[in-house]
Amino acid sequence: MGSFQGHALAGTFFLQHMKPSIYTNLQFQRLELFEGMAKAFFALLGMAGEQFVPGGPYLHLYNKDDHKWVMLTTWQHTTMYLFFGIPRGLNPLMNSLALFIEGCLFYFHIMHCSALDQHIHFLLLISVFSIALCYLLEVFIGNHPALELFSVSMFLTQGSWFWQIGFVLYPPWQGPSWDQTDHDNIMFITVCFFWHYAAALLIIAFNYTIIYCCTENISLARNCEVTWLAEKSWLLN
Amino acid sequence: MGSFQGHALAGTFFLQHMKPSIYTNLQFQRLELFEGMAKAFFALLGMAGEQFVPGGPYLHLYNKDDHKWVMLTTWQHTTMYLFFGIPRGLNPLMNSLALFIEGCLFYFHIMHCSALDQHIHFLLLISVFSIALCYLLEVFIGNHPALELFSVSMFLTQGSWFWQIGFVLYPPWQGPSWDQTDHDNIMFITVCFFWHYAAALLIIAFNYTIIYCCTENISLARNCEVTWLAEKSWLLN
Amino acid sequence: MGSFQGHALAGTFFLQHMKPSIYTNLQFQRLELFEGMAKAFFALLGMAGEQFVPGGPYLHLYNKDDHKWVMLTTWQHTTMYLFFGIPRGLNPLMNSLALFIEGCLFYFHIMHCSALDQHIHFLLLISVFSIALCYLLEVFIGNHPALELFSVSMFLTQGSWFWQIGFVLYPPWQGPSWDQTDHDNIMFITVCFFWHYAAALLIIAFNYTIIYCCTENISLARNCEVTWLAEKSWLLN
Amino acid sequence: MGSFQGHALAGTFFLQHMKPSIYTNLQFQRLELFEGMAKAFFALLGMAGEQFVPGGPYLHLYNKDDHKWVMLTTWQHTTMYLFFGIPRGLNPLMNSLALFIEGCLFYFHIMHCSALDQHIHFLLLISVFSIALCYLLEVFIGNHPALELFSVSMFLTQGSWFWQIGFVLYPPWQGPSWDQTDHDNIMFITVCFFWHYAAALLIIAFNYTIIYCCTENISLARNCEVTWLAEKSWLLN
Repeated sequence: MGSFQGHALAGTFFLQHMKPSIYTNLQFQRLELFEGMAKAFFALLGMAGEQFVPGGPYLHLYNKDDHKWVMLTTWQHTTMYLFFGIPRGLNPLMNSLALFIEGCLFYFHIMHCSALDQHIHFLLLISVFSIALCYLLEVFIGNHPALELFSVSMFLTQGSWFWQIGFVLYPPWQGPSWDQTDHDNIMFITVCFFWHYAAALLIIAFNYTIIYCCTENISLARNCEVTWLAEKSWLLN
Repeated sequence: MGSFQGHALAGTFFLQHMKPSIYTNLQFQRLELFEGMAKAFFALLGMAGEQFVPGGPYLHLYNKDDHKWVMLTTWQHTTMYLFFGIPRGLNPLMNSLALFIEGCLFYFHIMHCSALDQHIHFLLLISVFSIALCYLLEVFIGNHPALELFSVSMFLTQGSWFWQIGFVLYPPWQGPSWDQTDHDNIMFITVCFFWHYAAALLIIAFNYTIIYCCTENISLARNCEVTWLAEKSWLLN
Repeated sequence: MGSFQGHALAGTFFLQHMKPSIYTNLQFQRLELFEGMAKAFFALLGMAGEQFVPGGPYLHLYNKDDHKWVMLTTWQHTTMYLFFGIPRGLNPLMNSLALFIEGCLFYFHIMHCSALDQHIHFLLLISVFSIALCYLLEVFIGNHPALELFSVSMFLTQGSWFWQIGFVLYPPWQGPSWDQTDHDNIMFITVCFFWHYAAALLIIAFNYTIIYCCTENISLARNCEVTWLAEKSWLLN
Repeated sequence: MGSFQGHALAGTFFLQHMKPSIYTNLQFQRLELFEGMAKAFFALLGMAGEQFVPGGPYLHLYNKDDHKWVMLTTWQHTTMYLFFGIPRGLNPLMNSLALFIEGCLFYFHIMHCSALDQHIHFLLLISVFSIALCYLLEVFIGNHPALELFSVSMFLTQGSWFWQIGFVLYPPWQGPSWDQTDHDNIMFITVCFFWHYAAALLIIAFNYTIIYCCTENISLARNCEVTWLAEKSWLLN
């Protein structure tokens, strides 16, 4: 994952993960199955991408010649994807566990990085543990609009933040990379995280408005249809 | 905000923010709308005050000449006001988020200050995160007198504490400023914070007594009126 | 409080504070009033003891001659007693606040002490914050046997631990004081804290058994009396 | 416990501790009594093993000759076993306390160890405090499948992790021990902890499937029997 592509893949993985899956209608259950398969596929893709990129560990864990572990960072990423690939259905407990484990691995992962690297991942941890806590509360309280809103906004932030990390640590256009020890960069990146969050809230408010208007129209249309059917059946009788 | 005036403005902003907005009566809803507009106005005033004071950043973020960020501290303050300016209505979740984000920004804001500066802002964080937690609990539990009492007392403390910070770090009368490294000053400021809190509790107890007496009299007066109306209607029949 | 007597007074203060005050019976309400007065009296005694012992600050806060605060440690202790002296009735919220504030003051109080001093007070904080959390939960959940048991056992531990601190830091018999930097002493004091807790649990189990047996006998005696009265009334009819 | 055997004993102790004891049926209550006795026996065995191994403290706490505490590490372990030996019946509060105390003792226990030793025990603390929190929630919420699943999986991880600690710190086959300061070892052990957890989840899923199938068959068999009895009684009438 030590590349722009790796972070972009992870960001996309979490962005598509965000959608809450509460389908009461029968015709949506097929969609749900499809979604579960898509998630498992993305998790497998992540694991394979980590292991089999050129220069990856190719499933080797220990090098007996020089008594060293082989690319532990990659193995940590593989373990993260593993817990997201466990078939979880709609179980919020397993979602919560997967996120707590992702957070713990990240926490120990970044302990020996440079100051900027550590801080930018620490901000990521805010969103990771927030979503984990949301799912944990969902286990005991059940669906609650506040939990729903908060976890979706944090999922969006987590996804877009992975892209941000990629841009900061591995600038895709061969410009000069950021000064990793400049304290001003750390201060800017903190403010920037909350701008991502404000943008996530804005997107949700926009989506909500669109869907609200559409369903209004649909239910209006359906009401018309129902009225028309009722009138027709009245006429036939 | 690096001035006495900036802290005094922030303190006043949070002091007027404190009032819980539970109006069941119709004639109070106009008051509520007025209050919401007052809040948004204060938030805009805060953002404008941060950006356009003489020597402020005037919305510039990055200086391309010397490759430096422009006045990041001010941008952090602007971001804080931004989340308080988002129209929130009565939603405790958005209040909670705005306060958590304020707290996080403060936390990363003070990491590189002197010991006294850091400590005096850390004490502020106690009140900020306390109120954030109160609002969060309100999302799930609903209105509870204990939450109400605790959050109002902490809002009062937060507001008066901003004034205290202004007096300590930027003494308005040109006397000698406090020794920022003396451990005794840190110890005194800790005790002082809880004196502010004790004063906040005293003010609430005083207000409660006044309002209790007044409403007693009003309900007494109304009871008299009701009795008089009942007697009159009885006479007329 | 920097003496054996001071810690012994504080320990006794908290030991007599422990009793839960749930009296439904009318004849106990007089006892409750007496208890409230005893608590306020002890709090006042603590505050006076801190201020007016020989060599105390005698209510002086700032020395204008050498521009120094007067005996801030003593003022911290006075503030702690202040919050316990606020008339609280049975309000668990105010109990919780008093304990949280006691804990916070302790925390900032011990930051610059020797390792053993710091550790022995840190163990005290475990019991302080535990009780504060118990009272906070009581606000929302109400009386619960588990909360009752846990807070009483922690109150007992807190009280006896104050005596332990007195014995360790200010040995009353003029023997050699403990080596404050020896790591073995820190390890022993940690184990010792949990022995205090085990003893507290034992005392509660003992009291429970005694009271259980007594009330069994009383209800047995009352049942006999009721039976006898029933028989008598039957005979008289 | 400073040996492979000690850690293996502790691991086995916690592995046999894991089973949730909810028996509604009468014939299981004898099993429960047996289980309680087994637990107390294991706790006593642990305490005796700590005190009376060759070179142990043999209940001596303080050596008056050289003014030193005798083998405090061993006394800490004895105290841990003590709280697990207190007869607790099914009380989740006492289970929670025993685990919190175990966690606290561990925390202070490892403060002066090498980096790897500290980290491997810190990972253990994750499982210890997780289970303690589960039991605490059980006090207020009651039995909940999510708590049950999480605490059992963490108990399994705790038990197997004790074995892992034994293998890492005291390799039973006289090979070279692990380099305690190599950062790669710390990174590997972190990933390894979550593999233990994934294995625990796998074991539970396997057991669940087996038990589900068995009880299906039993209830099928019982249904057949009931049908057969119903038919017989119908014939007899």
